Amino acid sequence: MAPFTVMDLAARRKTARSFAKTPISLDDVLYSIKVAVQAPSGANKQPWRFILSTDAELRAKIRAACEEQEKHFHSSVEANLEEWFKSKNLTWQKPFLTDAPILVAVFSNRKMPYATESTWLMIGYVVLALEEKLLSTVTYTPPYPENLGYLFEAPANYRLETILPIGYSADSKPKERRQPSESLIYENIWNRNYPID
Amino acid sequence: MAPFTVMDLAARRKTARSFAKTPISLDDVLYSIKVAVQAPSGANKQPWRFILSTDAELRAKIRAACEEQEKHFHSSVEANLEEWFKSKNLTWQKPFLTDAPILVAVFSNRKMPYATESTWLMIGYVVLALEEKLLSTVTYTPPYPENLGYLFEAPANYRLETILPIGYSADSKPKERRQPSESLIYENIWNRNYPID
Repeated sequence: MAPFTVMDLAARRKTARSFAKTPISLDDVLYSIKVAVQAPSGANKQPWRFILSTDAELRAKIRAACEEQEKHFHSSVEANLEEWFKSKNLTWQKPFLTDAPILVAVFSNRKMPYATESTWLMIGYVVLALEEKLLSTVTYTPPYPENLGYLFEAPANYRLETILPIGYSADSKPKERRQPSESLIYENIWNRNYPID
Repeated sequence: MAPFTVMDLAARRKTARSFAKTPISLDDVLYSIKVAVQAPSGANKQPWRFILSTDAELRAKIRAACEEQEKHFHSSVEANLEEWFKSKNLTWQKPFLTDAPILVAVFSNRKMPYATESTWLMIGYVVLALEEKLLSTVTYTPPYPENLGYLFEAPANYRLETILPIGYSADSKPKERRQPSESLIYENIWNRNYPID
């Protein structure tokens, strides 16, 4: 593998909402999880669990349940957010839930300290490790994830944090623009711009 | 730079609670933020802000406020968690808040969708990018971060998510053990072990 920097991985990375039919290596997916469980967590409790799903029947159920929630969500969302969704061609439909080569559902144990925070930091590791393997994902979170644990027979103390569809991207949209970091960094006090050369 | 993998960065990384007096390059810290703001976020809202602090007076105030919260927290925490803290030599004292070369306070905009989740995913990027530069941190979150925004004059809609002390580690403790990823991965349904070679 050619040398790269974390910036290379982060900068080329874009959210994928459609995936090629090209098969992927399950080892690459397992690698991204092996990387990610090295992440720090509150009191080192490692509050996460992963469910890998390639089962067509289960995935059809997942998609149907998510899309039902999405229909409700899109009908109740603030006007300016719905406008943004429309401008990005985002609807209640989530075909990637059945079409991506694999889904990884990520859960956090609510009883652990900083369970959600730790789990999402760990997901940052997953995303960069997938990028190293040239794989793409979108951190898809259904509108009411706490109601979907039953699909996976998850215990009540585990919260579904996200469902990651993983595959080679077939998404033709460019990477969404990012604000320049200079405008997001302050020196000691809010709104005092950090002096960057 | 020698070639590396994301696993190299993740696996060697350990939480640092004490830091060498060796000066660090501010450019390395800014690099980690530039990397991190490439992360995905809910509706691409990039809900994060960063306050870099090297000011001794401000940092003394931050430390005093955090340690006051910690004293209260340690006196009210569950017995088994307090036992774990003691076994790790973790007390209410947070000397790294004044001793690390720099602090980076990370805020999220509560009004943005999935602000906390997005911000912590982004922090995963920060941690790996720091590791690339051989820098260490601990994702220190005070017990009641919502009460500390005033120290930075942060607007009420911004939530303090974590304070990252950054420097070269002077922590002699080994990396905390991680559970083997095999035990954390299920196939389609909770508790069905994923068949890993």
